[in-house]
Amino acid sequence: MKRMNNIKTFSGSLIGEIVTLPIDSKEILYDTSYYGQPKDDVLELTLIEAAYLIYKGKITVNFENKKLDFEGFMCEASRRTGNFEVKYIVFKDLRERGYFIKPGVTDFRVYPRGGSPGKTPSKYFVYVLSERQPMLLTDLVQQVETASNVKKELIMAVVDEESEITFYGARLRNMKGDMDNALSGPAIRASLLEDRVMVWDSNSSVQLHNEFLYGKPLDEIRLQLSLIEAAYLLGKEVIEIRDSKGGILTPNDFADQAVMVESDFPKKLAVYKDLRDKGMVVKTGYKFGSHYRVYKKVDQKKGMLHSEFLVHALDSNYIFNLPQLSRAVRLANSVKKQMIFAWESGGTISYLDIGRIKM
Amino acid sequence: MKRMNNIKTFSGSLIGEIVTLPIDSKEILYDTSYYGQPKDDVLELTLIEAAYLIYKGKITVNFENKKLDFEGFMCEASRRTGNFEVKYIVFKDLRERGYFIKPGVTDFRVYPRGGSPGKTPSKYFVYVLSERQPMLLTDLVQQVETASNVKKELIMAVVDEESEITFYGARLRNMKGDMDNALSGPAIRASLLEDRVMVWDSNSSVQLHNEFLYGKPLDEIRLQLSLIEAAYLLGKEVIEIRDSKGGILTPNDFADQAVMVESDFPKKLAVYKDLRDKGMVVKTGYKFGSHYRVYKKVDQKKGMLHSEFLVHALDSNYIFNLPQLSRAVRLANSVKKQMIFAWESGGTISYLDIGRIKM
Repeated sequence: MKRMNNIKTFSGSLIGEIVTLPIDSKEILYDTSYYGQPKDDVLELTLIEAAYLIYKGKITVNFENKKLDFEGFMCEASRRTGNFEVKYIVFKDLRERGYFIKPGVTDFRVYPRGGSPGKTPSKYFVYVLSERQPMLLTDLVQQVETASNVKKELIMAVVDEESEITFYGARLRNMKGDMDNALSGPAIRASLLEDRVMVWDSNSSVQLHNEFLYGKPLDEIRLQLSLIEAAYLLGKEVIEIRDSKGGILTPNDFADQAVMVESDFPKKLAVYKDLRDKGMVVKTGYKFGSHYRVYKKVDQKKGMLHSEFLVHALDSNYIFNLPQLSRAVRLANSVKKQMIFAWESGGTISYLDIGRIKM
Repeated sequence: MKRMNNIKTFSGSLIGEIVTLPIDSKEILYDTSYYGQPKDDVLELTLIEAAYLIYKGKITVNFENKKLDFEGFMCEASRRTGNFEVKYIVFKDLRERGYFIKPGVTDFRVYPRGGSPGKTPSKYFVYVLSERQPMLLTDLVQQVETASNVKKELIMAVVDEESEITFYGARLRNMKGDMDNALSGPAIRASLLEDRVMVWDSNSSVQLHNEFLYGKPLDEIRLQLSLIEAAYLLGKEVIEIRDSKGGILTPNDFADQAVMVESDFPKKLAVYKDLRDKGMVVKTGYKFGSHYRVYKKVDQKKGMLHSEFLVHALDSNYIFNLPQLSRAVRLANSVKKQMIFAWESGGTISYLDIGRIKM
């Protein structure tokens, strides 16, 4: 046990998942530094607070009639709570960078810089994850909603295998664009060739491409549509599609063929349709490893502007692999786009915006 | 049929997967423009060459006593060969940007800019893929080796759903660094806590971290090692590892526990070991969504230099998803690193370097 200058070291006991200190520790630890929670005649610390205060030389902890050093306490605490170490790493990092932290419904409630318990409301709900943990989309959304219901921001603190922390902000958002997507007139003739659709007629090709940004010209005359674009336009009766033998395909026939080429087809189409119907321009995000890059609008003179979003369609029961999430978000941010995950549930498409943030 | 100025239009026949033209077409199409292959008294075109020459108005094609227009020919050809459309898109793109192209063991043999058949050897073997095709690692490696055996570069031309082409170069490479990784002395004491390992002693922590770049300091005294680092150092008898109850773990015990935390552990460790043994410094690549970032050396004064490689460990029977490959390579290139895929086969680790290239 160290006693540095005037620093008083308090002696506590490890009981279950709590360390209790005598109440005379309250003035120094709780009143001025916001550690623990007073209860009757003791101050109760979480295991994480206790580990940090042992490291700081401010407390010692007894267990089964002997004093635990830092090593002994870490081993005990790791046995008692899951993810103890990664939570400790995040707690220590935030605390040492000037944030006050309280236990919360996610892992931590964190106060804004300069704020503190009692004076200011907490600002963030921090959710701590090891990069190896699988993360259910439904769990994450629930955490986001829990935070948002009490007007907090949800922050994911992901600890990698070398204990570096990356912080991500996550929030649900609306998507809305400024494009008028209304096309009318007789159905345009097109053919399904393997995994794309060809519009053969020059005027239709030009209109679909130049005014509404569908497809990609094969040459001066013909336009290639992706399966998704074609399915959307077929659903709106803008085009009619024949197979390579000349037979007309109904929207159902077409969907049946498309899903064989691309198993993600139904969920991709649901998101594409929602975005296009909301006035956005949606193009493939292949080069960025996502389903779509999305534009709020297109300048008729200058052509396509910078796309602001990458959108990736997920199943509603999707499980994130955190290194893959990291790659997606990092890539989106490196090209100045926001990474959005989208899924359909009960007929509604939801959009979750995940971005790296500096804490 | 168009006849523009002096351009002669030749009339051919579709037979199976070939279009035959009368031999008088040889002078214009083959001798000066390198289309087709003369055989007996005809010039034989591939379906792709024929489609392109129909588009250019240089030939017409008859099938079952009627002339096929471009649309008719595309539909016929798509029925006869897989991936016809994407191959046509790549052929047209390269041809119009000044490359001469011949059929090859991969899809195309391509001559360097300014070169042509008969005058210069071909330079590239081009392998055409739709972004939706799953690509077996073993297939890709075979293509790379086929090309490399005859001193060609393998180029993958990946066509996305909107018919944009991305070119990737792929080659096998050696990995070699300049670090001396030899550590000796009595085994350093460490503990396994959930999914990382803690070195408790200050001198050992400093040596492992500062001289050899293992781990990350938890604080001024203790060092955290990743499971992989710990397994490597345990294998070299540099550390000894106890569990949180104090029992000593053998390398096998440790591996058994690690694989429960991280199912990729064995293949990640095999690659880590190979790279470290070859004198490279290997750190986590989490922020880039890959297993490792890898340094050739560390400057003892300046610390770590820029890492040149991202390395991702695969199973030898891995199947690439091309949008994911695209994301990985794009991200690596955007941070000026080379993307390397590594796998173990027959006790040897191989390294495949895949990078975007401009054609």
